[in-house]
Amino acid sequence: MSISFECDYTLGAHPRILDALVATNFSHQPGYGEDEFTLAAQKAILSAAGCPGGEVFLLSGGTQTNRTVISAVLSVYEGVIAAQTGHIAVHEAGAIEASGHKVLTLPSHAGKLSADDLENFMAAFNADPTRAHTVWPGMVYVSQPTEYGTVYSREELTGLYRVCREHGLYFYIDGARLGYALEGGFDGTLADIAASCDGFYVGGTKVGCLCGEALVFPKGAPKHFFTTVKQNGALLAKGRLLGVQFKTLFEDGLYFEISRNAIEKADRMRRLFSGLGFEFLLPTATNQIFVIMEKNLAQRLSEQVRFGFWEPYSATHDVYRFASCWATTDGDVDFLESALRRAL
Amino acid sequence: MSISFECDYTLGAHPRILDALVATNFSHQPGYGEDEFTLAAQKAILSAAGCPGGEVFLLSGGTQTNRTVISAVLSVYEGVIAAQTGHIAVHEAGAIEASGHKVLTLPSHAGKLSADDLENFMAAFNADPTRAHTVWPGMVYVSQPTEYGTVYSREELTGLYRVCREHGLYFYIDGARLGYALEGGFDGTLADIAASCDGFYVGGTKVGCLCGEALVFPKGAPKHFFTTVKQNGALLAKGRLLGVQFKTLFEDGLYFEISRNAIEKADRMRRLFSGLGFEFLLPTATNQIFVIMEKNLAQRLSEQVRFGFWEPYSATHDVYRFASCWATTDGDVDFLESALRRAL
Amino acid sequence: MSISFECDYTLGAHPRILDALVATNFSHQPGYGEDEFTLAAQKAILSAAGCPGGEVFLLSGGTQTNRTVISAVLSVYEGVIAAQTGHIAVHEAGAIEASGHKVLTLPSHAGKLSADDLENFMAAFNADPTRAHTVWPGMVYVSQPTEYGTVYSREELTGLYRVCREHGLYFYIDGARLGYALEGGFDGTLADIAASCDGFYVGGTKVGCLCGEALVFPKGAPKHFFTTVKQNGALLAKGRLLGVQFKTLFEDGLYFEISRNAIEKADRMRRLFSGLGFEFLLPTATNQIFVIMEKNLAQRLSEQVRFGFWEPYSATHDVYRFASCWATTDGDVDFLESALRRAL
Amino acid sequence: MSISFECDYTLGAHPRILDALVATNFSHQPGYGEDEFTLAAQKAILSAAGCPGGEVFLLSGGTQTNRTVISAVLSVYEGVIAAQTGHIAVHEAGAIEASGHKVLTLPSHAGKLSADDLENFMAAFNADPTRAHTVWPGMVYVSQPTEYGTVYSREELTGLYRVCREHGLYFYIDGARLGYALEGGFDGTLADIAASCDGFYVGGTKVGCLCGEALVFPKGAPKHFFTTVKQNGALLAKGRLLGVQFKTLFEDGLYFEISRNAIEKADRMRRLFSGLGFEFLLPTATNQIFVIMEKNLAQRLSEQVRFGFWEPYSATHDVYRFASCWATTDGDVDFLESALRRAL
Repeated sequence: MSISFECDYTLGAHPRILDALVATNFSHQPGYGEDEFTLAAQKAILSAAGCPGGEVFLLSGGTQTNRTVISAVLSVYEGVIAAQTGHIAVHEAGAIEASGHKVLTLPSHAGKLSADDLENFMAAFNADPTRAHTVWPGMVYVSQPTEYGTVYSREELTGLYRVCREHGLYFYIDGARLGYALEGGFDGTLADIAASCDGFYVGGTKVGCLCGEALVFPKGAPKHFFTTVKQNGALLAKGRLLGVQFKTLFEDGLYFEISRNAIEKADRMRRLFSGLGFEFLLPTATNQIFVIMEKNLAQRLSEQVRFGFWEPYSATHDVYRFASCWATTDGDVDFLESALRRAL
Repeated sequence: MSISFECDYTLGAHPRILDALVATNFSHQPGYGEDEFTLAAQKAILSAAGCPGGEVFLLSGGTQTNRTVISAVLSVYEGVIAAQTGHIAVHEAGAIEASGHKVLTLPSHAGKLSADDLENFMAAFNADPTRAHTVWPGMVYVSQPTEYGTVYSREELTGLYRVCREHGLYFYIDGARLGYALEGGFDGTLADIAASCDGFYVGGTKVGCLCGEALVFPKGAPKHFFTTVKQNGALLAKGRLLGVQFKTLFEDGLYFEISRNAIEKADRMRRLFSGLGFEFLLPTATNQIFVIMEKNLAQRLSEQVRFGFWEPYSATHDVYRFASCWATTDGDVDFLESALRRAL
Repeated sequence: MSISFECDYTLGAHPRILDALVATNFSHQPGYGEDEFTLAAQKAILSAAGCPGGEVFLLSGGTQTNRTVISAVLSVYEGVIAAQTGHIAVHEAGAIEASGHKVLTLPSHAGKLSADDLENFMAAFNADPTRAHTVWPGMVYVSQPTEYGTVYSREELTGLYRVCREHGLYFYIDGARLGYALEGGFDGTLADIAASCDGFYVGGTKVGCLCGEALVFPKGAPKHFFTTVKQNGALLAKGRLLGVQFKTLFEDGLYFEISRNAIEKADRMRRLFSGLGFEFLLPTATNQIFVIMEKNLAQRLSEQVRFGFWEPYSATHDVYRFASCWATTDGDVDFLESALRRAL
Repeated sequence: MSISFECDYTLGAHPRILDALVATNFSHQPGYGEDEFTLAAQKAILSAAGCPGGEVFLLSGGTQTNRTVISAVLSVYEGVIAAQTGHIAVHEAGAIEASGHKVLTLPSHAGKLSADDLENFMAAFNADPTRAHTVWPGMVYVSQPTEYGTVYSREELTGLYRVCREHGLYFYIDGARLGYALEGGFDGTLADIAASCDGFYVGGTKVGCLCGEALVFPKGAPKHFFTTVKQNGALLAKGRLLGVQFKTLFEDGLYFEISRNAIEKADRMRRLFSGLGFEFLLPTATNQIFVIMEKNLAQRLSEQVRFGFWEPYSATHDVYRFASCWATTDGDVDFLESALRRAL
């Protein structure tokens, strides 16, 4: 079965990335991120993010990136605040705790953390006479888009960042699927993201790379961050693998172009489901769609296309996830439409 | 300057690996190492290692692999024994300590740990009435080939393993450049390696891959090792990137073939240097050669080919490292010869 | 102001403990817990706990004890389950996370964890196809009495233990104030506690000692636990300080006697408050009473006796904590009564 | 056998400390180091150390203190430098590594670290092009007196501190037996110690306390250090236990007085052994004497007094440790003399 909407990492890389890997393969380059491709990628990303004085580090994966940056930023007595649904709170196998730090959870509003909740939490923390017996909040972690495919607005991000600055909290944005937020509902640009936080990463793995996340520090990295990257096992000897990929994505806007493709296809899928009377678990504008569907129907549909089970909904219905990606074509959505009509 | 003997990771990947990445790019595959290429790679590696009942995990890099396996194997009160020159004792930025464990160092004999030293250390440890106030040795780490390009013989490895088993120590072999030992001086096969330890890794990054190390547990992995891999940030969403590479290397012996090429070229280089009267820091049979050279001569040579400074030797001479790799050609060695003759 | 109900650690030690420290002061003893007093204390505690084949370790404080035992029991991929109100989840400054492990929280029922919630959590965990990407539950932590002064019944403890054994979870009981549960509402004995878990500690600091907690492993301690104790900075050179105290408390039942005194005084206080029409935040049978009181009245009362603020209740009322201890006398309660009547 | 020279922690506490514990026992005091005795102790120690603007924290034991301060001071990418014989490098069960940091060892000169070795190490580190792949030195640890009973002079300490300041290293002194250095060979005062470092601790356990070490930060403590103390399980609920002891030791010079007693008795013992023709492993001026003695003689002597085996010396001789303490009397030394003469 060759049509899949299961998630955004079932294929390899965008063909232009493979082409670039082939084209650069026999160029001798220094290791550990000092190659010319990494340097070019860093420059292109900082330029796209409107912070030419910042710093960029290229790492392999999301959990690795989160763990490395959180362990570099936090002091030994500090923890990191996240929504209860935040990736670091749930699906990173205790990576943050393994580096010695508690994840302090606040309520999730469709995957999002609210500035009001954060402000209230900090006010209560500061009013607590026993606070010195507890973990000190040192950092705030959000995902853009969230684990539920929802997107923070500029105002929401700047609101969170304002509370962070008031309370001396480092504000960090996990952008595993950042492209799909930028092209799918965020009312701003990459430069707005960079201006709204102390650190963020631009996800590559789920936006057309074989692997790789570009960690951006708009105002400069934590001290000796290179060593912390190495200590976390996150430093590739052939850093060129990451450099070539991000250079390709950022030197002429390919990252945004392929993100936009995913959003356009997801929009078609949203209209398709709506038109057929389906309801969604929650409204999303990104590349992930959470459809409430009768179980029998889902069973029949799954014989024709691949998609993912998300969570139970009722005795007769479940929620299923349909995701588009950089490679999704109009033909794929056409196929989904016929498959759906056949299955109904 | 296009001819370089600086190290074995200045180029990209073996062309057949790139071809395989291109050929498989549009196949939808599950993530996190459950793709068909990873499954095929695991099977091929276990077969080559003569331990079909073992387990293989594919990780991205060496420090990451060492840290993950050591943190999985050791109990909280245990440390890992290594030669003073061992990679984990020196060049991993404290990765092992960051996971909570001490590296206990023993003398290095041209990079190697000796079974006698290990036996004596354990005897002294067991005789020490204060030992319960110290870290308990739980594991032994060696590199094959070593950081100095030397190679353990079968007898040396089995000798170490015998001492380990007597004392309940886990025996682990870091094979970042394992291919160059297998084809460059080791009097045995990959299956002999597998039979001589509890765990080892087959290095890919320095033997023709873009990235990747294949961690092999001949008798089975530590419990829930998948989760420990994830916790260490070492689990790629697109595990296929590693699967495709190792499948290519192991399904028809390419790994051994390209390792052999590096050794043949290194052998030519050794004869070249010897013939011209150079001496070596220590004799090696692998792809790394440590040449004692007059500083002025090295300066002139470096205008024609790239190679690495290793360590100071005397007022007038230093030690320089020349490394071959999977891609080194006879033409490259010819070029080195003419460059040397010009510089002399 | 010499009358205080603020908490159970505002005074020094029970006089018989001080007497014993003085009496044994000039006896030369080996260090690190090998002194004769520690040996006698261990024997007496195991006898009182009905598990002569068990092991006892004497440590200085509660956070230290929890951290040491949890880090010894859990594997690197495991976390510990606790009620949201559990001490390790809230007031231990991230000690558990600093040792690398996540605290997984379940709802608190007046401070207690329920076997049903635990069973449901484990069922959901085992049904979760992504569970290998999350922390594995390895241990369950409860406090007896709880942080809210409530007490688990024998049935509740054995219920929890049964679920633990079904799922391979280590069951650990924090007994910082265990004496006050044993004499204040628990329908069993110390031997019933020992039979209901894999490890627990008998709190000394809050039950008449200067410092010290006796960690009991009814079926034997984790391997090389002495070293883990040392590694956690929890091994006193003069272990006799702890040995003398626990020997005094357990050789003739002093621990139970002074716990009973605290409960009798608390019971008088409960009757006093009830009789005057006060309501309680929740019913307790231990040495801590949570009284809902008008703020102005509390202010007036606080001019005569000391007691603690617990949490806000309404615009006009707050909750206050009144605690008795081994040293509380009938005269103290008489004084509280007159002070209350004066303040009303 | 009631006469022992085995070590300095075989007895309880100085009687005046026990008296003070008894006298203060029924005073209600706040917990966690906010009691009036701790406040008085802190003031008295800072006054004795000539740094009234500094900060003091009272902890229970040495390993705990070292671990807590090192984990508070170091960044995630940093390690601590110590002599190979330093306590943290050997006998702390991996406590420093368990908190995530490497101990970087330099040669020991009769237990001491030399400023030249430190300067050379830092010069080599800074010249190493691969240093970013290694642990960054962040701190220097020395013991005063050392584990071998030797003492740093003022010049040696200020020499080390100068190198530390040049290289941005935190300089920390482990004073488990500090009193015996101050009265036994150090050519300065407690204020000179305080002026020569960033942090040090005044050992109580081995100088007359039941337990306790006073950690002094002459220029102020690491941020939120109270929380780090709690996180390390080093915060006693009844902080008064430590406060009363150190108040007693420092309010009228008792600490120095009892240290002086130990030195006077050790001096007598040194003259005794010398006079009888014994040689020492190395010269010491503190309370520990390392005597080279024929094994048979040692066996006979051990039937009359207790002392410790230190290390093997030759086929016929071993090294034995004789230690005095605050409680050693002239009568004890007289007894040792007769016992020796009988055994000879």
